[in-house]
Amino acid sequence: MGSFLQGLADALGAEALITAPDDMAPYLRDWRGRYQGSARAIVCPRDTPGVAAAVRLCAQAGVPIVPQGGNTGLCGGATPLPDGRAVVISLSRLNRVRAIDPLNNTLCVEAGCTLAAVQTAAESVDRLFPLSLASEGSCQVGGNLSTNAGGVQVLRYGNTRELVLGIEAVLPDGRVWDGLRALRKDNTGYDLKQLFIGAEGTLGVITAAVLKLFPALRCREVAWLTVPGPAAAVALLGRLRSACGDRVTAFEIIGHEALTLVLRHIPGARAPAVGTAAWSVLAEVADARDGSALREAFEEALAAAGAEGLVTDAVIAGSLAQAQSLWLLRESISEAQRIEGVSIKHDISIPVSRIPAFLERADVLLRAVWPELRIVVFGHIGDGNLHYNLSHAGAQVNRDFIAESEKANRVVHDLVADLGGSISAEHGLGQLKRDEIRRYKSSVELDLMLAVKRAIDPRGLMNPGKVLGL
Amino acid sequence: MGSFLQGLADALGAEALITAPDDMAPYLRDWRGRYQGSARAIVCPRDTPGVAAAVRLCAQAGVPIVPQGGNTGLCGGATPLPDGRAVVISLSRLNRVRAIDPLNNTLCVEAGCTLAAVQTAAESVDRLFPLSLASEGSCQVGGNLSTNAGGVQVLRYGNTRELVLGIEAVLPDGRVWDGLRALRKDNTGYDLKQLFIGAEGTLGVITAAVLKLFPALRCREVAWLTVPGPAAAVALLGRLRSACGDRVTAFEIIGHEALTLVLRHIPGARAPAVGTAAWSVLAEVADARDGSALREAFEEALAAAGAEGLVTDAVIAGSLAQAQSLWLLRESISEAQRIEGVSIKHDISIPVSRIPAFLERADVLLRAVWPELRIVVFGHIGDGNLHYNLSHAGAQVNRDFIAESEKANRVVHDLVADLGGSISAEHGLGQLKRDEIRRYKSSVELDLMLAVKRAIDPRGLMNPGKVLGL
Repeated sequence: MGSFLQGLADALGAEALITAPDDMAPYLRDWRGRYQGSARAIVCPRDTPGVAAAVRLCAQAGVPIVPQGGNTGLCGGATPLPDGRAVVISLSRLNRVRAIDPLNNTLCVEAGCTLAAVQTAAESVDRLFPLSLASEGSCQVGGNLSTNAGGVQVLRYGNTRELVLGIEAVLPDGRVWDGLRALRKDNTGYDLKQLFIGAEGTLGVITAAVLKLFPALRCREVAWLTVPGPAAAVALLGRLRSACGDRVTAFEIIGHEALTLVLRHIPGARAPAVGTAAWSVLAEVADARDGSALREAFEEALAAAGAEGLVTDAVIAGSLAQAQSLWLLRESISEAQRIEGVSIKHDISIPVSRIPAFLERADVLLRAVWPELRIVVFGHIGDGNLHYNLSHAGAQVNRDFIAESEKANRVVHDLVADLGGSISAEHGLGQLKRDEIRRYKSSVELDLMLAVKRAIDPRGLMNPGKVLGL
Repeated sequence: MGSFLQGLADALGAEALITAPDDMAPYLRDWRGRYQGSARAIVCPRDTPGVAAAVRLCAQAGVPIVPQGGNTGLCGGATPLPDGRAVVISLSRLNRVRAIDPLNNTLCVEAGCTLAAVQTAAESVDRLFPLSLASEGSCQVGGNLSTNAGGVQVLRYGNTRELVLGIEAVLPDGRVWDGLRALRKDNTGYDLKQLFIGAEGTLGVITAAVLKLFPALRCREVAWLTVPGPAAAVALLGRLRSACGDRVTAFEIIGHEALTLVLRHIPGARAPAVGTAAWSVLAEVADARDGSALREAFEEALAAAGAEGLVTDAVIAGSLAQAQSLWLLRESISEAQRIEGVSIKHDISIPVSRIPAFLERADVLLRAVWPELRIVVFGHIGDGNLHYNLSHAGAQVNRDFIAESEKANRVVHDLVADLGGSISAEHGLGQLKRDEIRRYKSSVELDLMLAVKRAIDPRGLMNPGKVLGL
C-alpha cells in the first residue's frame, strides 16, 4: 500500500479503508447501472473529525474527493470518474442522531443517517420530518441535502432546502465549518449553507445538519380522481388549496399510459373504482388535528370541483389499505417502466400554468418526428414537476429510438426552456446533465457558478466532472 | 459637473441624477437618524438597463455603490459612509409589477415596488403575499430581499428567503444576471439567488424578483391571552399548532413593561379585557377557507391549554375593530418606546426551547450590574425572535446607562451566543453590527464569507463598510 493510502489507514483505522476490488465495486457504479467509475480507495470515516482528516490528506496529496451517501442518485453524481484518481468518501458511518428538540421543532443528524432513520427519529418525539422519497430506506440525508431532494410532499413542505436550518461541512482544505444552528431567524451575513445544499458534493462534504420538524399528521384522506385533462387538474389544485389550505399534502397527475403499465406489470395493483381514464389525479390531504372534519372538507371541495367540471369521477379511500393501494398505483410507475423496457426519461419543471401548453406542444413536436411514440407522463403537477418518458412498443424499434436520445432530449428540453422551465427539477445534474445544462444557462450564470466554485474549491478537488464538469 | 457625473447624466437622463445637497439629504441618513453619510450623487435609474449602466460607469471609475430602496433599514446598511466616495443607486423608480400568474401562484415585481404595492398586486388576483412589516408602506421589496426581512407572519410563511423563487440582479461589473424563474423545483446548479438574498447590497444590486403567492385568507381570529410565563407560552404554541396546524399565523409575546408603555403613550390603546398580566400573548389563526370552524377549533385549543394551566385568561376578538385594537397593542410598542426615550435595543433569536432560560439568565446577569434596569421584552416568540430592550427611568440615569451600551450588548450577546442564538435575528448587520459579529462567528465562517465576497465583488465596490466591513 502506497504512503497516501497508508496515511488514510493510519488516520482513520484500517477498517475504514476499502481497497479490495470486490468490496469497492458497489461504490463505483450508480444505482441504475449507468455509470461505472474507478477509484483509489473507498474511505469510511466514522465521524466528522475523520471526514476532515480524510479530506485533508486527499487535499495534501492533490487527490480528488467523491462524497457518497446511500448511492441512490440518478445522475451519477456520487460515482467517481473512470480515471480512477479519486477517493470515494462514504458518509455511511456518520449515522448518529445528535440531538432532538421537540419544543424547538428541530433535529440534528449526521449525514449518513438514512432518510428513514431521520423520519423515525422525528416520530419518536411525535413530530414529522416530511421529506419522503421512494429510496428513503437507503438514501442518506447528506445526499438529500447535496441534491436538494424533492419528493411527493414538496407541495406542502417544500424541497429539502426549505427544511434545513443549519449544516456542518468539511471544506475542501479539510477545515470544518460548524454552521449548525437551530434558528429560524438569523440575519448575520451570507447564508452559506445554501451553497452546499444542492451543490452535489462539488463544494465540500456535508457531515451533519439541523432539520426542521413539523407537527405529526394524525389523519389523512387519499382520493383518486379522473379529470378532463391537465388544465383541469391545475385548476382543481387551486380549488383544493382554497378549500383545504395547507392540508393539501400531495397532488400527482397520472397519464393513461403510466397507469396502464402499472396495471400490466405490478402484482397487486388494482384499477381504481373510477376506472382508467386518460388523466387521473391522486390527491392527498392530511391534518395534524384528528377528527378534524378533514374528510368532509375534502368531499365538499371535490363535489364543488365536480360541479365545475374539473373532476369527472372520484373515489376517496375508505380505509388505510385502500389508501395504500391507491398510492401503490402512483409509486409503482417507475418500477413498471423498468419492467416494460428502456425509455428516454425527463425530469422537468415548468410553471404550473404552462403545463397544458407544454404537453400539447411537446406531443406535436415529438410525433412529427416519431409518430408511433409512446409518452408516459406522471408526476408532481402541483409543483410543476413532470416525469415525461418516451419509448416505443417493440424491442428493436425501441432500441433504435433510444439511440436517438439526444435528439429527443433536444426537442423536449428546448421546449421546456422556451416555457421558462428547468431541465432537471429534482434529480440534479451529476454527470448526466453536466454538459447539456450549458445550453440552457446564460454565460453570466455560468460565470457566477464558476466564481463560487473557484472561491470555495480553488484546486478543483471536490467531485470533479459533476454539475459544472470542472 | 465632472466627467464621471456627466457620464451618469448622459446615460440615465439628467433627471435621474441628484446632486443638490438639500435633495440628496434624505438619502444620506438612515430612518432612525443614527447614521449620517455623504455621497458623490444619488442616481435614480428607471429600469434594469439603467441600473446596469450606472453600475458599469461606477465600476469603470472605481466608485463604490450603495444600493438603496425605501431607506427604512435599522442598521445603516443603505446609508453611504461619511467618506463621500460612493454613489447611492436608488431603486425607487423600478416600481413595475412585471407579471402576475395566479395559476402558478407567482408574481414578478421590480425591486422598487413598495411592499404594500406588492401586497396589493397579490390581492388584485385574490392571492396573498404574506410578508408584512410595520414599514410596508415605504419599504421596497428589493430591500426586503437584501435584508431577508422577517415580520409577524414568519411563523406561518417563513422569511423573505422562503418567499422568493428567482431574482434579477446587476453584478458589480454591470452585467445583468437574469435568474427570474417561476419554478418551485429546479436543481440545475448552485442556487445563486441565495447569495444575494440577505447580502444587504454587498454582492450586487437586486432589480427584480419572482415571489410566491398564497391563497388569500378569508377568516381570521385574534386572541389576547395571559400566560404564566414564557415557558408556558412556548408550550401553548405547540398545542395551538397541533390543534390548528398551519392556521397559526402569528404568535407574539408581550411583557408587562412593553404593554405598560403602550397604554401610557399610545392614543386609543386600551387594556385588553383580561388585564395587563406579567406576560401576554397575541395569537392569530387564519384560514383560506371561510366559515371553516376556525373559531371553534381555536376556542377548543385555548380551552384545553387553559385546563393544562398554559393560559390563565383569554379574550378572542369578536369583531374586526376589536382584532385591530388588540394588534395595535403589539404594533405600537416600538413607537411607545420611542416616545418614552432611548433604550439599548436587541434583536435576538434563540432556539425556542431555550427562551425561558435566556430570560432568566439575562435578567440575573444584567441586574447584577444594573439593579434598577427596566427590561422591555416582546416579539415573535414562535420563531425564537425577541426584541429585548433596556433602559432606566429618569433621563440622566438613562443617559448614563446608554453610554454603557457596549457593556450591556456584550452581556446580552454573549449569553445569546452561549445559548446557540443569533445577535441579529431580523435586521441584518449593516454598519451597526458589522464589527461585533466577528466576536460571534468562527474564523472558518468569516473566511468563507470573504471568499464569496471576493469571488463576486473582487474590487470591493458594493456597499463598502457593511456586513463584513469590507
